Amino acid sequence: MTSSAPNSSAQDSSARDSHELAALGQQLRVDSVRAAAAVGSGHPTSSMSAADLMAVLLGGHLRYDFDRPDHPGNDRFILSKGHASPLLYAAYKAAGAVTDDELLTFRKEGSRLQGHPTPRALPWVEVATGSLGQGLPVAVGMALSGKRLEQIPYRVWVMCGDSELAEGSIWEAAEHAGYERLDNLTAVVDVNRLGQRGPTRHGWNLKAYADRFKAFDWHVIEIDGHDVDAIDHAYQEAASTAGQPTVILARTRKGKGVAAVEDQEGKHGKPLPDADEAIQELGGVRDVRVQVRKPAAARIMHTIRSGHLELPRHDVGEEIATRDAYGQALTALGSARGDVVAVDGEVGDSTRTEYFAEAHPERYFECYIAEQQLVATAVGLAARGWVPYATTFAAFLTRAYDFVRMAAISGSGINLVGSHAGVAIGEDGPSQMGLEDLALFRAVHGSTVLYPCDAHQTGRLIAQMAELDGVRYLRTTRGATPVIYGPGEEFPIGGSKVLRSSDADRLTLVAAGVTLHEALSAAELLEREGIPVRVIDLYSVKPVDRRTLREAAEQTGCLVTVEDHREEGGLGDAVLDAFTDGAPVPRLVRLAVRTMPGSASPEEQLRAAGIDAQSIAAAVRLLVEEAVVR
Amino acid sequence: MTSSAPNSSAQDSSARDSHELAALGQQLRVDSVRAAAAVGSGHPTSSMSAADLMAVLLGGHLRYDFDRPDHPGNDRFILSKGHASPLLYAAYKAAGAVTDDELLTFRKEGSRLQGHPTPRALPWVEVATGSLGQGLPVAVGMALSGKRLEQIPYRVWVMCGDSELAEGSIWEAAEHAGYERLDNLTAVVDVNRLGQRGPTRHGWNLKAYADRFKAFDWHVIEIDGHDVDAIDHAYQEAASTAGQPTVILARTRKGKGVAAVEDQEGKHGKPLPDADEAIQELGGVRDVRVQVRKPAAARIMHTIRSGHLELPRHDVGEEIATRDAYGQALTALGSARGDVVAVDGEVGDSTRTEYFAEAHPERYFECYIAEQQLVATAVGLAARGWVPYATTFAAFLTRAYDFVRMAAISGSGINLVGSHAGVAIGEDGPSQMGLEDLALFRAVHGSTVLYPCDAHQTGRLIAQMAELDGVRYLRTTRGATPVIYGPGEEFPIGGSKVLRSSDADRLTLVAAGVTLHEALSAAELLEREGIPVRVIDLYSVKPVDRRTLREAAEQTGCLVTVEDHREEGGLGDAVLDAFTDGAPVPRLVRLAVRTMPGSASPEEQLRAAGIDAQSIAAAVRLLVEEAVVR
Repeated sequence: MTSSAPNSSAQDSSARDSHELAALGQQLRVDSVRAAAAVGSGHPTSSMSAADLMAVLLGGHLRYDFDRPDHPGNDRFILSKGHASPLLYAAYKAAGAVTDDELLTFRKEGSRLQGHPTPRALPWVEVATGSLGQGLPVAVGMALSGKRLEQIPYRVWVMCGDSELAEGSIWEAAEHAGYERLDNLTAVVDVNRLGQRGPTRHGWNLKAYADRFKAFDWHVIEIDGHDVDAIDHAYQEAASTAGQPTVILARTRKGKGVAAVEDQEGKHGKPLPDADEAIQELGGVRDVRVQVRKPAAARIMHTIRSGHLELPRHDVGEEIATRDAYGQALTALGSARGDVVAVDGEVGDSTRTEYFAEAHPERYFECYIAEQQLVATAVGLAARGWVPYATTFAAFLTRAYDFVRMAAISGSGINLVGSHAGVAIGEDGPSQMGLEDLALFRAVHGSTVLYPCDAHQTGRLIAQMAELDGVRYLRTTRGATPVIYGPGEEFPIGGSKVLRSSDADRLTLVAAGVTLHEALSAAELLEREGIPVRVIDLYSVKPVDRRTLREAAEQTGCLVTVEDHREEGGLGDAVLDAFTDGAPVPRLVRLAVRTMPGSASPEEQLRAAGIDAQSIAAAVRLLVEEAVVR
Repeated sequence: MTSSAPNSSAQDSSARDSHELAALGQQLRVDSVRAAAAVGSGHPTSSMSAADLMAVLLGGHLRYDFDRPDHPGNDRFILSKGHASPLLYAAYKAAGAVTDDELLTFRKEGSRLQGHPTPRALPWVEVATGSLGQGLPVAVGMALSGKRLEQIPYRVWVMCGDSELAEGSIWEAAEHAGYERLDNLTAVVDVNRLGQRGPTRHGWNLKAYADRFKAFDWHVIEIDGHDVDAIDHAYQEAASTAGQPTVILARTRKGKGVAAVEDQEGKHGKPLPDADEAIQELGGVRDVRVQVRKPAAARIMHTIRSGHLELPRHDVGEEIATRDAYGQALTALGSARGDVVAVDGEVGDSTRTEYFAEAHPERYFECYIAEQQLVATAVGLAARGWVPYATTFAAFLTRAYDFVRMAAISGSGINLVGSHAGVAIGEDGPSQMGLEDLALFRAVHGSTVLYPCDAHQTGRLIAQMAELDGVRYLRTTRGATPVIYGPGEEFPIGGSKVLRSSDADRLTLVAAGVTLHEALSAAELLEREGIPVRVIDLYSVKPVDRRTLREAAEQTGCLVTVEDHREEGGLGDAVLDAFTDGAPVPRLVRLAVRTMPGSASPEEQLRAAGIDAQSIAAAVRLLVEEAVVR
């Protein structure tokens, strides 16, 4: 490491000279102040508290090749307190990865240096942060990959804020990491005692945090976060601690180094009042460059098998739940593809991921009843190149929605499967029913939303999901439904199936999953009464099959959607996706779950919700009588 | 307490005889087995492990008047492990609140005894459970009410499972309760070591749980959960512990008392294999009745003031952010109504609930960065009769979605306010932008969804929210927008405002919040070009103003929705709610956020998303040119 003019060649940092590290810390502060000042927003004070922690990590401990972010041996660094992005970008500059000019584009339109870091913009960012309490849970997923799958001795470093330790997701992660003895994981907590709006609960009471992490089986180190030697020793101790993850609790001062803001309330999330003066107080602009330690040559211990996919085959007419078909298909996919992994939230016997767990135990991750950690584990595994399928009840996946939202910001490729969709689960009642999931997952940017009605369709869709970008969601049904498609049938994403059609169709029933079977039965009933109707299986809820829906609209004039879901945001709204460019819109009728269900049998539930065959037929008769349809 | 024939009169239980309590425990087991057997589903084994814990609570410690569930002095009991509902209903029977005949309606259509308990069905249930990890967080809200607001010395008892201790929400609650020293709160953990799919992480390692709760500043008691004397002593100790909440960690055996299932895997969530044999093994059907201790006469120490609501007044044209208007209006509402309380997630300086905190500190609850606990606190406070407003960034409210879903199942009346909606926040980037919130809250059963565009509208809507049923959601905007309505204007729920209208309108722009102002500007631009358009302020997103939208459809033929939200599930889909009964549908065009934003100024963000005035005008011109509109 050396102080030098801009663009000078970097020097080796192995000496880890305390003065140079302290100088680097000051530079990171100065650059954080400058970046925020240039745009007039950002979080310099939250960056300044952690600057020494970052300097020592960058200067002596992180092993990372900035020219090869895909190097398998790279350490992983996650800024869980994502608002301290100026510090991260200042570190990138010190490492020679971004220029000073680019640093000053911070938070401006088109810049890679966004307000909160995201891998969509920058190759060195592992995962998008900015929603607090998510960095550590995702890091657990990456550490699991390093230890159990990749078997590469990289370390996963996470820098957390103290405020975010109030998030339950942090303790889901702490529990998971402690239990799995992830000694390749180090959390560094920047305890600057000040949250956004004022003091945190525990202030500088490091013991409060230490007690909590110790209880969750972590190795705990308490230090002064501005003492570079103490930081250095703590990182060494973390790296040499076996059998436990380590948390370094660092007492720091928010806005450290600038009297006008240091350790003061009301200075969160805004540029310093006088940047020039602050820079002078911090010793002026520097250009210390640091040559970050390169990773060891990584021997990739694992091999990704790839073979022929042999999906289960069933007889048409056989009754099998799509959750069973999912478990079978996922197991087959796991046999064909060595990069497929499964994660479950302690309900694998219900979701049927237990089939995968039995066949591929080395690629199965049990997250117990902690849905945020479930999705975070998937995101972490995806970041390391795996193709994860994370599964729990559709109702409980909603608990991890903020993680799904952030996964979309990361551009993460994850598969989420929600079982026990809709009122069709029966007696268990509304707490266990996924009734809002389609609405939630449709609203995720770049998502794919699928809802199969039979075993072969489930298998084909599960296999295709592995190849898609972004967040993929599929919902499964608890009870058995008949196989209606042959094993060779194809189900393109964005497609649909027209299962009944004639020139005389009075209207079109659009359904998916369990209601598709009800719609088919209703169509048969109506046919006998001289009311022919079209039936479309809209298994691809997002994207929808615009062509087929428009054709049905044109030919039959009215679309009746039938869904085991709330009336908002699901199939009924999805159909509209085919018509919102100003095209002529057909008449629309929605049959959906409009009441709060209680306990009852699956058949009773469908009837009570008005989405069983009889109710559908009755609704159609009414439309015919009232001459709403032609 | 006495063993007696059915319908015999109940006796006093003050003796707390160990044998009788043990017999009561066996009866609760028998009745749990019978209830599940009668319907062929349910969770008898999870009930049996906790039967002795319940028997001793009911027989000697709970103070509750089943004839007066609204008695202010009643203890509160929450079955956090809601799947053990047979045990709860068996206890209701033992207390004489339900008959044996009703017990055997468990899980059947129309029964009050649903698969998971809910206050919508039963007056003695405080809150719906069934999604694990939620009972304790809600109990914290109730305990806060008892201690800080009602100042009535009732106790809040929560029965948790061991599996659910993996949920982060449990640790948000543990942190909150420990920090607030809620010694009126007792958690009883039924450590039966078996989750749904197999052993829990910690099995019978009570110390693991003890260490965790101690670290979070709880008083911890470890007992044999089948030793009625030990249970009795533990409850006494909990009641006499000051300055700390107490957790009782009870080692139990799942399926206790029936060899065919006791402490065995694979016996979760299903009736016993041979109910008759099991009942014999448990000593046969009993009819022990217990007279539950009555609550002390509660002196209501607090008075609910009620006065005239004086909402802030602004000049038309004044620029003020709706988040500021919200903070001001909430403060005014708090002055007018003593039952209004506010809860925030450590962002009160941004959401502006800090105004309320300054004016009404005794009714302000800081939840720090723990959004699940934020919503749970609101649910708990609402259960005690308060009118809570829980606020954080719209983006982060998504984290508590499962709690919102369960609140709807409870029929809880809570107000949720999400600030920093949409891309309009500017530089902070997508992690901080509420872009999916309308979709999420529309899908909640019985919800109201509001999105004001100016200060007066915000105030009026905030005041009306207090009077509504169910979950009410309002989103606010970060940046200033001009006041366009006078202070006397009324904004009925389910209404809208037609702000521009003529017989010559070529189409209708439908907008709300920040885009309403863009739509008005676009309309002015277009007017100058000879393209008159109607503008509707759809501040009530759910329910929507069907009449006005239909009229606009009829008169202008085309609705163009403009929203600072994802294209799915928001304003664009909401408009459809006015047309899904088979009515003629206008042509529809959606302008919404279709890309992943980066950092940029608010103006740049709106432009990039294609929802600023210029983009709206351009879209309309295209529709006119392509003759999509008349």
